[in-house]
Amino acid sequence: MSMPASTRPATVRNVLFIMADQLRWDYLSCAGHPTLRTPNLDALAQRGVRFDRAFVQGPVCGASRMSTYTGRYVTSHGSAWNFVPLSVGQKTLGEHLRPHGLRCAVVGKTHVEPDLDGARRLGLDPSTGAGRLAMEGGFEPWERDDGIWPPGFKVEGNRYCDWLRGLGYTGDNPWHDHANSALGPQGELLSGWEMRHARRPARVAEPHSETAYTTQRAIDFIDEQGDRPWLLHLSYIKPHWPYVAPAPYHAMYGPQDILPAVRSEAERRDPHPVMRGFQQTPPSLSFARDEVRETVIPTYMGLVRQLDDQLGRLFDHLRASGRERDTLVVFTSDHGDYLGDHWLGEKELFHDTIVRVPLIVVDPRPQADAARGRTVDALVESIDLLPTFLDALGLPPAPQWLEGRSLQPWLAGETPADWRDAVFSENTYAFRDPVRLPLGRAVEDCQMTMLRTERWKYVHVDGLRPQLFDLAADPQELDDRGADPALAGVREALAARLVEWLRRRRRMPTIHPDDIAAWNRRELDAGIRIGEW
Amino acid sequence: MSMPASTRPATVRNVLFIMADQLRWDYLSCAGHPTLRTPNLDALAQRGVRFDRAFVQGPVCGASRMSTYTGRYVTSHGSAWNFVPLSVGQKTLGEHLRPHGLRCAVVGKTHVEPDLDGARRLGLDPSTGAGRLAMEGGFEPWERDDGIWPPGFKVEGNRYCDWLRGLGYTGDNPWHDHANSALGPQGELLSGWEMRHARRPARVAEPHSETAYTTQRAIDFIDEQGDRPWLLHLSYIKPHWPYVAPAPYHAMYGPQDILPAVRSEAERRDPHPVMRGFQQTPPSLSFARDEVRETVIPTYMGLVRQLDDQLGRLFDHLRASGRERDTLVVFTSDHGDYLGDHWLGEKELFHDTIVRVPLIVVDPRPQADAARGRTVDALVESIDLLPTFLDALGLPPAPQWLEGRSLQPWLAGETPADWRDAVFSENTYAFRDPVRLPLGRAVEDCQMTMLRTERWKYVHVDGLRPQLFDLAADPQELDDRGADPALAGVREALAARLVEWLRRRRRMPTIHPDDIAAWNRRELDAGIRIGEW
Repeated sequence: MSMPASTRPATVRNVLFIMADQLRWDYLSCAGHPTLRTPNLDALAQRGVRFDRAFVQGPVCGASRMSTYTGRYVTSHGSAWNFVPLSVGQKTLGEHLRPHGLRCAVVGKTHVEPDLDGARRLGLDPSTGAGRLAMEGGFEPWERDDGIWPPGFKVEGNRYCDWLRGLGYTGDNPWHDHANSALGPQGELLSGWEMRHARRPARVAEPHSETAYTTQRAIDFIDEQGDRPWLLHLSYIKPHWPYVAPAPYHAMYGPQDILPAVRSEAERRDPHPVMRGFQQTPPSLSFARDEVRETVIPTYMGLVRQLDDQLGRLFDHLRASGRERDTLVVFTSDHGDYLGDHWLGEKELFHDTIVRVPLIVVDPRPQADAARGRTVDALVESIDLLPTFLDALGLPPAPQWLEGRSLQPWLAGETPADWRDAVFSENTYAFRDPVRLPLGRAVEDCQMTMLRTERWKYVHVDGLRPQLFDLAADPQELDDRGADPALAGVREALAARLVEWLRRRRRMPTIHPDDIAAWNRRELDAGIRIGEW
Repeated sequence: MSMPASTRPATVRNVLFIMADQLRWDYLSCAGHPTLRTPNLDALAQRGVRFDRAFVQGPVCGASRMSTYTGRYVTSHGSAWNFVPLSVGQKTLGEHLRPHGLRCAVVGKTHVEPDLDGARRLGLDPSTGAGRLAMEGGFEPWERDDGIWPPGFKVEGNRYCDWLRGLGYTGDNPWHDHANSALGPQGELLSGWEMRHARRPARVAEPHSETAYTTQRAIDFIDEQGDRPWLLHLSYIKPHWPYVAPAPYHAMYGPQDILPAVRSEAERRDPHPVMRGFQQTPPSLSFARDEVRETVIPTYMGLVRQLDDQLGRLFDHLRASGRERDTLVVFTSDHGDYLGDHWLGEKELFHDTIVRVPLIVVDPRPQADAARGRTVDALVESIDLLPTFLDALGLPPAPQWLEGRSLQPWLAGETPADWRDAVFSENTYAFRDPVRLPLGRAVEDCQMTMLRTERWKYVHVDGLRPQLFDLAADPQELDDRGADPALAGVREALAARLVEWLRRRRRMPTIHPDDIAAWNRRELDAGIRIGEW
């Protein structure tokens, strides 16, 4: 923080909550990547605290994001995979903050699926007012854009696509045909959905790319707000596939720059049955080939580098506009990308490659000066963000809803003695026929729950053997000891721990613990005396 | 069923869903009570099926009823004790049926606590339309009345109290001062809240009592509906305390008629710590005395007898009006009453005395003729009722929400081979300071979960030893073997079973299992092909 402490306020007024999609924890230079350069995120980490071991609550976009947006584990909010509507019964980040006067908006992706059945049941109009906000996961859709349209899909009513059309990028689907495709030698369209085209430049100029546009819209929102308080969820779609980058980012890295695949022959020979299923899906079969990795990963890196450059522009604007002074800035991701590690592509399982994400938090207040530039290796979770926001904004906690803990002590340079020693993440493979059907499992029987401590990673898999990794001996998670008789005692202890966690979920969110504790007294005060002779 | 099969329709049109409050399973003559006579309920059982082993999902009104009204276990609906608001996110019986054209109303008690915070969040008006219905647990409050007002409370806007006032029963609280109190020798008011007065007659004539009034209102509703389809939840407050009956019911039974207390010295000497806490509460200390039992239980029996007589009147009306022909009739209770068994008063724990309830179902259709008069001893749960209603009405099941199973096979005389072999019930003692505080437990750490099979009853208690009863050797549940080393293996197996149950709750109710199973195909049809080279 360059400015003197005296010019900064004692409380935070705004929150800039930035999320990248499918960005691995280890694809930042400040996290140790040897060739990828992310100077603006490195500088952000220098201005605040980088949490080196931050974990998401689900290894796919939807479940992970709904946990971040509700501050609750997946089993508590029930939106257990992509496209599972977020129940109108769940209280979201926006609903926690808005009553206190903050405008809570999104620019970019949320992956929130509207609970239209809930809206009908309650007579809510899903197109306006509180009903619309509930359908949007509590965010005002200032410019919501989840991206990801297949080739041939006619995109209507999308602001980015309309803007591209205004710039001359014509067609039904300029998102696909221009921003996420390239041109071939004969001028033919090469879709970014086919990864073989990843090394070619996008058909848009860099300032017209999704990442640049999204950044500009965030700047527009911040300017529009002026001195009025806000939380902006700035949510980039990249470096999520399609793996297409605009020039010059498409060519900034090459095969010589990529990290070697983390994988072993044993993993392919005798994997966990669910992992075997995922290894047989198209993304995994593709990324098992070196040619694919060497084609795609340099572009993935270029997309990260572009994101970093755009964030540099945004941070400059924040500084120039004076908002750096009173804004809590968070940068994170919703999950990683296997990119061929463990013979897998995409995500869905619980290796650190996927569930560990970048997390940088900058608290502008003087009280946080002592910790600037620090790296914290405590186990933190994405559900800690909402409590952190409440805390930074000086708002009351909501323990009946929120299952995470405020990160404020770490931001102030403290080391809480009673910090958690385990993190949790959940997924279901019910939606993935190629995994589910060969295992003969009903859709209700496909739950997986991960518990990760300092030493162990344990994954309970309904009806099948668990996975177990000894992270001390095997930090790359190559040796699944889920069936090793020598570790039966360890598995038993971890399974018991997982059960204890499951039992203690916040499933009674409609009453505050203080009201529970006060109940007996209130009953007596009201003259209710039961069973007296 | 007296009428010929040919005059009865192939589908059920209405549902008369009757619930008594705090009525034990064994206080009906058809369930074997040796002195109490309930001829009208006995006749109802002859016209349908009596489920002899029906269990509620919670041992207090609120949690039990919310399970019945949502068709979900307590952990799934989250309204874990009395006065815990039922989340607007929960879909209720009324919300399942109303879209299909049934009017769904309540006469009497629901114990639904409105989720006002949820209403505020969603911009719902809790006083009208869908918002009001959501605040009423999905029931149109045609005449909702939860009763139970302490002495001195000024009752306003209550129809029963206004009606009493119109009859000359004056005062701020005619419910208490007349219907639930008696007069002493000097004409002084003797409150029914003090159990010593239980043998005296209420200060209202029988036709003016709560039970008679409630019955009349049900008849009024049925008449008002005519041929339009309905579900009526007719929900009596009695025989719940205050234990005051109108003449002649106050004197119909005496000490010689009551069942002996089921209790042992060992239970008092070395009870489970939570049971010890409840044994020290006023209702338990009172009911431990024979004088109290001999005063209260005859009146409790008189209240049941009065209820039975009123139901006779209602069933006569149903027959005379032609509604018996097309109406599914259900009679049940929300939980029992210890009445001194196990040195306990009231409820809150998991002995069969409390969690086992009467359940009689009459299906008017010809297909059910074969089973009339049968007693079924399969393990059934109150969450089975909502699926039974959907089934009888010919409506689609809602597996994403409902955790019970339709009882229809039993009503048709079948014996499903794959019927459940265990039932579950849950409670928290967090609200009960006299139990919680001596144990030094935080409000979050007071969960109890019961699993009952044919042979065993196992109660998991957070952080304390479990309870375990061998129902084959000890059907009265007097010998708690929760700490017996010889049964460690049994406890381990039951604990594992309970965990499996907990894992499999329906926590993803916003998506239908069929939509999950269809997902992969839909994605491909939409042209989404991830990870192709």
